[in-house]
Amino acid sequence: MSATAQIKAINVDETIVELKKLYGDRVSTAHSVREHHGKDISFHEAHLPDAVVFAESAEEVQQIVQLCARLKTPIIAFGTGTSLEGHISAPNGGISLDVSRMNKVLAVNESDLDVVVQPGVTRKQLNEYIRATGLFFPIDPGADASIGGMASTRASGTNAVRYGTMRENVLALQVVTPDGRLMRLGRRSRKSSAGYDLVKLFVGSEGTLGIITEITLRLYGMPESMVAATCAFDSLEGAVNTVIQTIQSGIPVARIELMDTYTVDTINKYSKLSLPNKNLLMLEFHGTEAGTKEQAEMVQALASENGGADFAWTGQAEERSKMWQARHDAAWAAKAYKPGWGMWATDVCVPISKLAECILETQKDIVANDLFAPIVGHVGDGNFHLTMMVDPNDPTYLPRAEALNDRMVARALSLGGTCTGEHGVGVGKIKFLYEEHGEAMSLMRAIKKAIDPDNIMNPGKIMGPIN
Amino acid sequence: MSATAQIKAINVDETIVELKKLYGDRVSTAHSVREHHGKDISFHEAHLPDAVVFAESAEEVQQIVQLCARLKTPIIAFGTGTSLEGHISAPNGGISLDVSRMNKVLAVNESDLDVVVQPGVTRKQLNEYIRATGLFFPIDPGADASIGGMASTRASGTNAVRYGTMRENVLALQVVTPDGRLMRLGRRSRKSSAGYDLVKLFVGSEGTLGIITEITLRLYGMPESMVAATCAFDSLEGAVNTVIQTIQSGIPVARIELMDTYTVDTINKYSKLSLPNKNLLMLEFHGTEAGTKEQAEMVQALASENGGADFAWTGQAEERSKMWQARHDAAWAAKAYKPGWGMWATDVCVPISKLAECILETQKDIVANDLFAPIVGHVGDGNFHLTMMVDPNDPTYLPRAEALNDRMVARALSLGGTCTGEHGVGVGKIKFLYEEHGEAMSLMRAIKKAIDPDNIMNPGKIMGPIN
Repeated sequence: MSATAQIKAINVDETIVELKKLYGDRVSTAHSVREHHGKDISFHEAHLPDAVVFAESAEEVQQIVQLCARLKTPIIAFGTGTSLEGHISAPNGGISLDVSRMNKVLAVNESDLDVVVQPGVTRKQLNEYIRATGLFFPIDPGADASIGGMASTRASGTNAVRYGTMRENVLALQVVTPDGRLMRLGRRSRKSSAGYDLVKLFVGSEGTLGIITEITLRLYGMPESMVAATCAFDSLEGAVNTVIQTIQSGIPVARIELMDTYTVDTINKYSKLSLPNKNLLMLEFHGTEAGTKEQAEMVQALASENGGADFAWTGQAEERSKMWQARHDAAWAAKAYKPGWGMWATDVCVPISKLAECILETQKDIVANDLFAPIVGHVGDGNFHLTMMVDPNDPTYLPRAEALNDRMVARALSLGGTCTGEHGVGVGKIKFLYEEHGEAMSLMRAIKKAIDPDNIMNPGKIMGPIN
Repeated sequence: MSATAQIKAINVDETIVELKKLYGDRVSTAHSVREHHGKDISFHEAHLPDAVVFAESAEEVQQIVQLCARLKTPIIAFGTGTSLEGHISAPNGGISLDVSRMNKVLAVNESDLDVVVQPGVTRKQLNEYIRATGLFFPIDPGADASIGGMASTRASGTNAVRYGTMRENVLALQVVTPDGRLMRLGRRSRKSSAGYDLVKLFVGSEGTLGIITEITLRLYGMPESMVAATCAFDSLEGAVNTVIQTIQSGIPVARIELMDTYTVDTINKYSKLSLPNKNLLMLEFHGTEAGTKEQAEMVQALASENGGADFAWTGQAEERSKMWQARHDAAWAAKAYKPGWGMWATDVCVPISKLAECILETQKDIVANDLFAPIVGHVGDGNFHLTMMVDPNDPTYLPRAEALNDRMVARALSLGGTCTGEHGVGVGKIKFLYEEHGEAMSLMRAIKKAIDPDNIMNPGKIMGPIN
């Protein structure tokens, strides 16, 4: 978290002059606009881009990239600015390429259960757009993020345990490469063995290999029956063991989310709920009427064996929606609970058999170090989050929070897990990557260098400075 | 299919001398051994490797690659030799690296539903090994292929519609890179956003980026109930429309396979069955007792609306197993039906809404050109196969078969599909890749060159000669 100097991008003044000739007042160098585009919702130090340009088509993105490529000016794509590890910061300066105006749904292929969207479409906008078709797009990070940003960070959310992450749900892309070529990656067919999987390479590459201008996504039929449930546990261990046994039993839960008592407390206040003030599982079952009933009963039986009580379920759409909105607002609830404090959200993911150990050790660590860091998790995947709150008036607080994060990541890695299950690397997780990937980092660097030899695409992210 | 000259690999004689010093009689230059290793079960012209070395450990693979890297000798990995597009042929000569003796299951993590295997383990061997755990590995190409080969070709099979392909089921890999480094890609956690997805890049790369020495796979709990069914249709269209409607309804079929009347005829003879001599769907449902019954009834209703009859189902393990073995033997059944003829298996995959059009046009094309090419398909994914039989006594037959294949691929591409859903590129599908991927081929080439600058890893495959 120490401050780092921002590198002055070469030729950036010339790039801005050229951009203004092309796009006029769609290019901004105003401080407020640059600040909005350089600072995501993370706790990481912001470096502002030198200018922001608002693109309105794939052809404009291509033109902008060609200009930047010629002048070797860094380009950072921007969707909604809701990344969590400093992904949109501009440590080398350069141009923020805002794609939020490219927000059209281009094609809904109902019979193929897929959709083609521009990168600025947000997940809620997409689901609103396709509501009448009876289809839905399940991936739901906390924020109403853009699909382009979600693809770039390999986002997931509460439904991933059943429907997969962006990795499983992006079928094809249109991208502009660092040398300014517009090209298609992948096809609409569900399977292919025709060469390297470039789609999966670009998904999760955080804008370091090119700019995404179009995304083809899988959709799913809205289930006949959706039933949500909550179940309360005195011990965190009982809740986590219920999750582990549910997954191991192969019950096809659509959602299985954990909240520790601190999270429940903050959420009850923020979302005006009266959830039992215990460790809580929030579940959802998708299927036929008979199927969801059967699943819910099976999980209830497992929960009871693990000390679960107050099992409450509802098939009522409004109640379900309220409950999940509260879950999505967990980070904001923590922030509201500690007015004036900073917020630092971090996540790890471990094999499910190690989940209890990883969460319980982390909780002990939080208590032992007198920190406020509510735990929530997409625990069906072995993924959990800390919403670490940071007291700005206590100079020891931030270093203690940072050390907690370091220890949690080390714990996850030692248990066979990863330093981030869904937030991505940005600038915040770079320091853990060598420990996680070892020698394989050299392959990532080789690929980056082969595709973006001048390092103009979101430089300083994932691998840090490499050229 | 025209004959091409084999390139003499540089330094290969020196490489063989060095290999013999290290591995003695585990290095063979016998013609029969080389022939077995240079010719897969495809119709493509075989080029034999100069020698075959049988490796017994990851460290040996590393040592062999280091030697070949130093002398720039090509290396082609070999598992079971059951590839379908000439993947193991040696157009540039070199060393066939046989990993079939690396056939140990290294770790079964029952509680995480994953397993770590060496590349020479075959899919049937794996399922036999883990039977007592109540878990199973669903990916099932026709042959009893090696897991290393299946990962390399991004294989799938009859269960992919429910459980995904190798793309979705390989969690992590250990590989030897072209410069002779042994490294791990990916982690055991179910999700990660920590950098480029190198696992997905290596899956499907057909040995062109390195040698796989260890694979971590997802496993699944054996369902409480498995019910198989067959349903016969007078028209191919009725069968295909049943498939399309089943997928669009979101019924979670585990398997939904199509056989045209020609396939049914060959299979009845080969496997001594008495399936109705019509277009046939073979299905399987996985779930609870109630769930599989519900699914089967829903599909039966759809089938009836599309002219399906003779709906027969069974939960009996032996009958199910016999039926699926017959399906897996479809290619052999076609071969036995035309004794002395050659066999050329090819596949394409299209968006499901285009499946009827693509299959029906292809069937018309077969008839119009008086060819024998039974159609089978993993149709739930939009994937289907031709088992083109080739009369060696008719010199016009092979060119007509080749032209049929060309037209089928062109048809699939024009419908938004891919030139191969699961067989891979090898040498057979190279000529279609530019049409399918366009400019994106340059990214594949850039990656290949960055990771394997001397082009020693299975040269001449996927992209053809590139250096």
